[in-house]
Amino acid sequence: MTRLDIRPVPGIREIESGDDLARMIVDAVAADGWEIEDRDVVVVTHKVVSKQEGRIVPIPTEAAYRQLVENESVRIVRRRGDLVIAQTTHGFICANAAVDRSNIAEGFAVLLPVDPDRSAHRLRMLIERATGASIGVVITDTFGRPWRRGLVDVAIGVSGLPSILDLIGTSDAHGNELNVTQVAVVDEIAAAADLVMGKASQIPVAIVRGLNLEGSGRATDLIRPPDEDLFR
Amino acid sequence: MTRLDIRPVPGIREIESGDDLARMIVDAVAADGWEIEDRDVVVVTHKVVSKQEGRIVPIPTEAAYRQLVENESVRIVRRRGDLVIAQTTHGFICANAAVDRSNIAEGFAVLLPVDPDRSAHRLRMLIERATGASIGVVITDTFGRPWRRGLVDVAIGVSGLPSILDLIGTSDAHGNELNVTQVAVVDEIAAAADLVMGKASQIPVAIVRGLNLEGSGRATDLIRPPDEDLFR
Repeated sequence: MTRLDIRPVPGIREIESGDDLARMIVDAVAADGWEIEDRDVVVVTHKVVSKQEGRIVPIPTEAAYRQLVENESVRIVRRRGDLVIAQTTHGFICANAAVDRSNIAEGFAVLLPVDPDRSAHRLRMLIERATGASIGVVITDTFGRPWRRGLVDVAIGVSGLPSILDLIGTSDAHGNELNVTQVAVVDEIAAAADLVMGKASQIPVAIVRGLNLEGSGRATDLIRPPDEDLFR
Repeated sequence: MTRLDIRPVPGIREIESGDDLARMIVDAVAADGWEIEDRDVVVVTHKVVSKQEGRIVPIPTEAAYRQLVENESVRIVRRRGDLVIAQTTHGFICANAAVDRSNIAEGFAVLLPVDPDRSAHRLRMLIERATGASIGVVITDTFGRPWRRGLVDVAIGVSGLPSILDLIGTSDAHGNELNVTQVAVVDEIAAAADLVMGKASQIPVAIVRGLNLEGSGRATDLIRPPDEDLFR
C-alpha cells in the first residue's frame, strides 16, 4: 500500500540563466541531510526552470505586458477586463497565457519553458546521472479553474512517470467497471507538492516519495484535444 | 517548514446506511498501529459518507439513470451524447451531476451527501470526541476538467480547516505582490490524498499529517459565483 512522504527542498537560491539546476537540487537535498532515492518524484515550479533557461522578458509598460500575453497566445478563449484566458503555444489553457510577473524583478515577466516536457526530461537525466537514482520529474504551474475559486498547481512538464493512470477495464469490488477510468496522476502530484512549497515561502522544489508508478508520459498528454472540448 | 506524511487507512469494510463511520475510521487507524493526532486532516471519499447517509437510489434502467441525473441537476451546462455536464443542487459543476454507479451494487447509484460541509462537520465532531484530537475533515469527489484530460479529486465537504488560502497582500522576495493570491488548498489536499487511496484499491480514507493551516472554511466557498463565471 502506498504511503507518501512529501518534503520541501530548502536552500535553493535565486536561479539565473545557465545555472546547473540539477546540481543545485542534489546539493540542496544533501545539505538538508538526506538523498534522492529510486522512484522519488522531483517536483519543480516552472519558474526556476524558465529562469534557468533564460525565459525572461522585459515589460517596461502595462501595454508591453498585454502585448506579450497576445504573443504567447495561439487562441483567446475568453476575455473580461484585464483577464485573458488563452491557449499557449504548448496547448495549455490558462490565465494570461502563463505570462507571470511574480517572483521576478519589477519590469520583467517569466514565460513558460519552450518545451516543458523536454525540460523535465533533461533535468531528470542530469539528476539521475548525479545521484544514480531512477526518478521522475514534474514541472508545475499554477492554474485557475472555470467553476472553482482558487488556484491549484498542475503539471506542465513530465518525465519518468505516467501522466495519466488508465484504469479502463478495471473493476470495483462489486464487479462494475470503474466509471473513473483516467486519473490525472501528475496533476495530483503537482497539487500535493504545492502543499509543502507554498507561493510565498520561496521553496521551488519538493520531492514526493512512496509512489510506485510504472510507465512514462508527457504533460502534453493532458491537453484535451479540440474534438473533446465542450467549452471552445 | 511543512513536511507531509500521507497514509491510507486500510481495513474499512463496505459501508451501510447508519454505520458509525467515525468509529470505524478511528478503529481502522488503531488496528493499523497508529493514532489520529492533532492537526491531522482526515480525507474521506464521498461515497462512504453517502452510503452511511443512505444516499443510494435504485436505477433499474438506463432511462432511470438519465432521469436521476436530470433530477440532481439545477442547470445543464453542456450536453454531448451520453455526457452531461451539470450543476448540482449544491452548486458544483461536474459530469452527470455527480450521480455515480461505481463502487455500488449493479442497479444502484450513489448521490452526493445532501450537505457535504455539514457531513464533514459531523464526522469531525465524532472523530474529535473519540480521539481528543483537533482535526480537519475533507470529503472528496472525482471531477473532470474542461481542458485537461484525466480526472482529479477535489473537495466537496470541508470542516476544521480553510478551503482557500488567501495570500492577498503577500509579497514575494522581489517585493512584488503575488499574482497568485488564492490557493484552493483543500482541493490540493483532496488530490494529494487520492494518490494513496486510488480508485481501484478500495481505500476510502487517508490521513494527511504535517499541514499547519489556521482557520476554517467550507467547500461551498470554492464554488465560483455566476458573475465571475466566464463559461456559463
